[in-house]
Amino acid sequence: MASNNTFWLQLEKAEIGTRKTFDEVLDQLAFNDQGLITAIAQQADTGEVLMLAWMNRESLEITLKEGQACYWSRSRNQLWRKGESSGQVQWLKGLRVDCDGDALLLLVDQQGPACHTGRRSCFYFDLNGERLKVLNEPLVDPTSLYGKG
Amino acid sequence: MASNNTFWLQLEKAEIGTRKTFDEVLDQLAFNDQGLITAIAQQADTGEVLMLAWMNRESLEITLKEGQACYWSRSRNQLWRKGESSGQVQWLKGLRVDCDGDALLLLVDQQGPACHTGRRSCFYFDLNGERLKVLNEPLVDPTSLYGKG
Repeated sequence: MASNNTFWLQLEKAEIGTRKTFDEVLDQLAFNDQGLITAIAQQADTGEVLMLAWMNRESLEITLKEGQACYWSRSRNQLWRKGESSGQVQWLKGLRVDCDGDALLLLVDQQGPACHTGRRSCFYFDLNGERLKVLNEPLVDPTSLYGKG
Repeated sequence: MASNNTFWLQLEKAEIGTRKTFDEVLDQLAFNDQGLITAIAQQADTGEVLMLAWMNRESLEITLKEGQACYWSRSRNQLWRKGESSGQVQWLKGLRVDCDGDALLLLVDQQGPACHTGRRSCFYFDLNGERLKVLNEPLVDPTSLYGKG
């Protein structure tokens, strides 16, 4: 979607290899009124979309610094180092920003299942105009990921 | 992320093939306080993530009924049949819902570039802890997509 932000507008015609500093970019990312931005996690080698989560500035900085995905948990209202309790870490292979700076795409190497249900991907329902259908079973028992869960 | 919604919780252990009706699902999707839900568009055959956009109930229903992606444009505050002015239609190949019903994944066959800049994907910036870098050039001049733009 087109942006009204001149920072992103000016980059639309920029040559390949054009650079901006990290600090400049951080100030221009379109965090919403809760300070959050959407982040898609995609398995880097297979292209499978694993999940969609949210980041704030701090979790983005941690992700890039530590080389593994850290999100903002909206349900727990705190930083969420993916895999901190389950071991299902996402090693960061690359991070993309979209054309108007309001979405991130993390290319990751997902260790084990990404989904809290024990499935590889969170997108395990197929929906058409008539019905929703369960596509996958858990790879592992989720209680094995979260202890006494 | 785990849901507090019993509808999604009860599906966590459902067998493959378990079904719910479309109307039931529509009532349980976690549209935000603006009535919107995130929708990722992914090229069905290559797995390339093309863009992230938003849908309301109506645009989701139109997408499934018409077999091509229709979003809600937050900047124009109206339904946005992808490609209606540019011809860059997304034919729908499948639609996934995530574990807690707050994100959609559209598997599409993207005609031409997905991005308003004329690039195939909107995610054309690489970001690391030091800099942002432009990865791709437009495939086509965006003014050719939008007329006198």
